Amino acid sequence: MIGSVLVTGSNRGIGFELINKFLCRSQPPEKIFATCRNPEGPRSEELRILASKHTNIVLLPLDASNIESVKKAAVEVEKYLNGSGLNLLINNAGVISREKLEKVDADEMIDTFKTNVVGPLQVSQVFYPLLKKSAEENAEKPLGCMKAALVNVSSMLGSIERTPLTFQPENQVISYRVSKAALNMLTRLQAESYKKDGILCTALHPGWVKTELGTERAPLTTHESATGIMDVLGSLSEKQNGLLVSWEGNVIPW
Amino acid sequence: MIGSVLVTGSNRGIGFELINKFLCRSQPPEKIFATCRNPEGPRSEELRILASKHTNIVLLPLDASNIESVKKAAVEVEKYLNGSGLNLLINNAGVISREKLEKVDADEMIDTFKTNVVGPLQVSQVFYPLLKKSAEENAEKPLGCMKAALVNVSSMLGSIERTPLTFQPENQVISYRVSKAALNMLTRLQAESYKKDGILCTALHPGWVKTELGTERAPLTTHESATGIMDVLGSLSEKQNGLLVSWEGNVIPW
Repeated sequence: MIGSVLVTGSNRGIGFELINKFLCRSQPPEKIFATCRNPEGPRSEELRILASKHTNIVLLPLDASNIESVKKAAVEVEKYLNGSGLNLLINNAGVISREKLEKVDADEMIDTFKTNVVGPLQVSQVFYPLLKKSAEENAEKPLGCMKAALVNVSSMLGSIERTPLTFQPENQVISYRVSKAALNMLTRLQAESYKKDGILCTALHPGWVKTELGTERAPLTTHESATGIMDVLGSLSEKQNGLLVSWEGNVIPW
Repeated sequence: MIGSVLVTGSNRGIGFELINKFLCRSQPPEKIFATCRNPEGPRSEELRILASKHTNIVLLPLDASNIESVKKAAVEVEKYLNGSGLNLLINNAGVISREKLEKVDADEMIDTFKTNVVGPLQVSQVFYPLLKKSAEENAEKPLGCMKAALVNVSSMLGSIERTPLTFQPENQVISYRVSKAALNMLTRLQAESYKKDGILCTALHPGWVKTELGTERAPLTTHESATGIMDVLGSLSEKQNGLLVSWEGNVIPW
């Protein structure tokens, strides 16, 4: 059983669906920290409705690219956990930008990197002590989400190896792809660094999903993707530590 | 024979040594564009002395992370090329930052990304028409540096696959490693995008070299690294297009 989980960008898309799926489990987490930049805003209405119906959901503001906001959220989470650690952190918040190689500029490259790489880095740094505490509390368990795990939502489009198969001249999404390759490296470095603490670190490809980010052209619904992800989360072990795993559980080369 | 080459960050380290090695060839390039941020500054003295002795060296200011500076340099290069294209562009300028995972902050991540990824991107974008022109002029030649090539100086430390072998707890260089993985992805995307134009794109691992960046602990001299790189440049072909190649000519996994 996963005792506590935190999801960033949980007001929409895959993040929102993951919250739903955690609630549907036969043994739902005791604490589900559903975070997003603005839980009071019009784009978080569905999440507020969901939270009003479930006492195990804690809705919190968290802007991953703003370190002060992340620290403030962590103080709140710590209060709610009441001395316990955090089992599972899912860095789900991310953006896409679509410019081609000829057109993409410094601002787009840096903004995308900031949200998709620096954001997850900062959230992981600030919540690391709570993950570590969970790993210590569950020292007898094997590496996995029931002990302590950090999952970065990445993309197959961040696979350098797969680029010849996935490159589309009409949809190059350069800054997005570059940021996801960078996030994959960060995940691998986190895995190396946090191995000593018993925290599992995995990058996750959620599939191409019908969301604002994935567009309506995507083949997968959020339900299909999140259902797959829940199975993958349940099966994560030493074997997937530091790797890029798809929503179907397959390892994707870097 | 390589007719013309441009090297960024050519006032010191590997960049400076590459200029030397081009000069030593039995058939040196007709034009060697040796660029750096401040060719008039105290850190460019050796390069100025070298340029004063060789009429084929053109010394130009170029700050890769400043798009206006890159454009200004390209106007100058175009004048010197007098209607011809540019054979070879070497994005060599780069920085290192050494913080560990616990300590690395947003500013360091973004600054390193800006110099090591956005810089090469911008230089490649601005010089692309001149590379394309060279590929057209040499349409009958096979893909390679005698036709048109873009070489991004990357690092084995950017290899996600190799991280378990190269990770050092005491020398994590997180922002550097993340930036080089991002640069590797950029290179692969450039290779896919510029294939149609006949421009070869390769990421290059120069080895761990005794420079300001590599420190005195490094096993290789700039002479050894640059000698290897010159051989590799001469042998680049379709086979290495879009790959990460070491100074010894070996392909490194992503």
